[in-house]
Amino acid sequence: MLKINEERLMSDLNELAKIGATADGGVSRSALTLADIEGREWFKNKVAEAGLDYAIDGAGNQSAILYSNPKTEKRILAGSHLDSVPNGGRYDGPLGVLVVFEALRTMKDNGITPAITLETINFTDEEGAIMGLLGSRAVVGQLSESDFSHTKIGVDDLEQRLKNAELTRESMLSAKRDDVMAWVELHIEQGSRLEDAGMNIGVVNAIVGMRAFHVTFKGEAAHAGTKPMTMRKDALWGAAQFVLKAKQYIMDNYTPGVCNVGKISAKPGAFNIVPAEVYCALEFRHGSTAELERMQTDLLNLLDECAKEFDLDVSYEATPHVHPALMSETVMTAIESASDALNLTHGRLLSFAGHDTQTMATIAPSAMFFVPSVDGISHNPAEYTNDADCINGANVMLHTLLNLLNGMSA
Amino acid sequence: MLKINEERLMSDLNELAKIGATADGGVSRSALTLADIEGREWFKNKVAEAGLDYAIDGAGNQSAILYSNPKTEKRILAGSHLDSVPNGGRYDGPLGVLVVFEALRTMKDNGITPAITLETINFTDEEGAIMGLLGSRAVVGQLSESDFSHTKIGVDDLEQRLKNAELTRESMLSAKRDDVMAWVELHIEQGSRLEDAGMNIGVVNAIVGMRAFHVTFKGEAAHAGTKPMTMRKDALWGAAQFVLKAKQYIMDNYTPGVCNVGKISAKPGAFNIVPAEVYCALEFRHGSTAELERMQTDLLNLLDECAKEFDLDVSYEATPHVHPALMSETVMTAIESASDALNLTHGRLLSFAGHDTQTMATIAPSAMFFVPSVDGISHNPAEYTNDADCINGANVMLHTLLNLLNGMSA
Repeated sequence: MLKINEERLMSDLNELAKIGATADGGVSRSALTLADIEGREWFKNKVAEAGLDYAIDGAGNQSAILYSNPKTEKRILAGSHLDSVPNGGRYDGPLGVLVVFEALRTMKDNGITPAITLETINFTDEEGAIMGLLGSRAVVGQLSESDFSHTKIGVDDLEQRLKNAELTRESMLSAKRDDVMAWVELHIEQGSRLEDAGMNIGVVNAIVGMRAFHVTFKGEAAHAGTKPMTMRKDALWGAAQFVLKAKQYIMDNYTPGVCNVGKISAKPGAFNIVPAEVYCALEFRHGSTAELERMQTDLLNLLDECAKEFDLDVSYEATPHVHPALMSETVMTAIESASDALNLTHGRLLSFAGHDTQTMATIAPSAMFFVPSVDGISHNPAEYTNDADCINGANVMLHTLLNLLNGMSA
Repeated sequence: MLKINEERLMSDLNELAKIGATADGGVSRSALTLADIEGREWFKNKVAEAGLDYAIDGAGNQSAILYSNPKTEKRILAGSHLDSVPNGGRYDGPLGVLVVFEALRTMKDNGITPAITLETINFTDEEGAIMGLLGSRAVVGQLSESDFSHTKIGVDDLEQRLKNAELTRESMLSAKRDDVMAWVELHIEQGSRLEDAGMNIGVVNAIVGMRAFHVTFKGEAAHAGTKPMTMRKDALWGAAQFVLKAKQYIMDNYTPGVCNVGKISAKPGAFNIVPAEVYCALEFRHGSTAELERMQTDLLNLLDECAKEFDLDVSYEATPHVHPALMSETVMTAIESASDALNLTHGRLLSFAGHDTQTMATIAPSAMFFVPSVDGISHNPAEYTNDADCINGANVMLHTLLNLLNGMSA
């Protein structure tokens, strides 16, 4: 049975981890910074060395291509991203690009000419240094001029980064593609469900949708000495009640859906003043739009209930929704067949983090799979995936692509 | 029965309220600012007009004096403060100075020469623009050079304010007195217990002590999507549980003692990150040291309990204690006899706010009494006490001083 070159894969991964390396074993390759540019150069050279075709689009997405003969118009794409969060780990992103690159090299080494052109992609700025999923959004046509008014960095920094990569806003906006027949991505889990279950491969059946609200409880400021407790309208009492009740309610009724209150603050904000106003940042995620809708209704009702209990007012403002992305049965089955053929255990699960796959799913049958993250640690220098799991992932990717080639016609 | 001059009292109160007046009917006379200096000049002139003796000590405390004949070495002091919080009300402080001033004028008008010298005091900076209870601390010898390193304003501002009043740090540090035989203060309640009970006079039997802690719950930062809720160590869960349990526990077991969490914040502080660390500012107050001690033990145990429940760590750091001040039975009885004689209803209660009386109680038999605050509003332009209650307060002050003169010998 065809297998990838284990040493070559691990050597690539280790080489790449030296670029933007941090003292504590992590990497910092924020999109289009000089460290990221150096990583991109390294990848471009690797593609040339491997004798694969290289391409880069207007959004800076890099490709290593193994052409069919004759060249098909449509292509099967796979990959992930080489950028990292600041002070992040070495697996989140790079492993997903390198396993596809290795799979294509393995086919080439074994004289396999695919029936459909295969393309490895390194998507620009998956981590959102500039804006989340920038490269894949450009490819699917979700990027618009106005998005550049809401980047996470200032105009000067943006222009500098675009210049580093010889890109422009105009080139970014013209990167839309219509030649994608299917998409597949490998990623580290960034959680510990696979490890806890002793499972090799997690087949993602949906990437969760996410909704977030700015919530404000309003009561009445009062002297924390002279105002009897029975007469207070303490905004923090309502907020605290909500934090606890929401937690329990979501765990009891919506698992594996999740919620979080990640920010909280009180006004006026002094030891001796009863809080008049408490702000909370509320976020919740689920794999289906229907469940998200129900969660939203329940959580907003709970806000009202908690406010009422303490004689408070509560208001909330929604941020833009992130819709759930359902994965393609065809692509999931290709991943599962590959895992079975390699005697690897697998199961379906939700992805609770966002990935380029959710964007690609809007234009082509798409799916992704996870390999285990030790202790679930991610976005952290201590992020780690065992070599054996990296290699398993690469072999599953190789056979998933072969299965897709077998099952699809361009 | 001897009564104060109602019109003169109310006219003084209204005149003084024009100094530092704000557009919304309040006053801003922060200690030793130009508005406060103008208020002090007004008072000095009023004392001269009344034919009383005027004095000012090294801490800027102003006195209107009605001497005994012969002049006793020891004196009975009474008063409050003329400074206000920024954008505060017109009663908090001034009423307490003016009722004593009016009582002394009334005695003088009626040819009463007291057996012991009586002195009305306007204490500097009761509200703590520079440092809380500054004037009375100077008088009792609680002020030290090092206190000037911890003022609430910058050095330049401090020097400017001292200059405004022709004071120096040295003069402040030399204002200690040992001639105080008793102290009494009238203040507005700044709460609504008297109003709710339909009572005229609240005799303070203790000024509560206060303890405050910086509290930090520590859990583990995690991705708010990928980390299953059952596996989180969310620091906000522990903090929220503490806020609610502390509230209930203190209400159930320590009323009229109170507690407050007036500040809260979460780190790292993002929608999509489970809080690793939550800071809370905890404060609690009670009238007796023994109860404060028990409250502290119970609240700190509760912190540990709440941390344990959610698998968190918790740490806390105490700020300097404010000790409770017990009021003198002699002075309380003098106030109660005066109220009875005037057919005014009265009851004993705790003061949950700090006052110069707590400082004065460290050197002489002291007590204070409250008149009602409409709706309990204070430190606010809407602060209001009915004219009838102001007048009642002045008459109670007059007869309290007469009672003290009868019961004490210099």
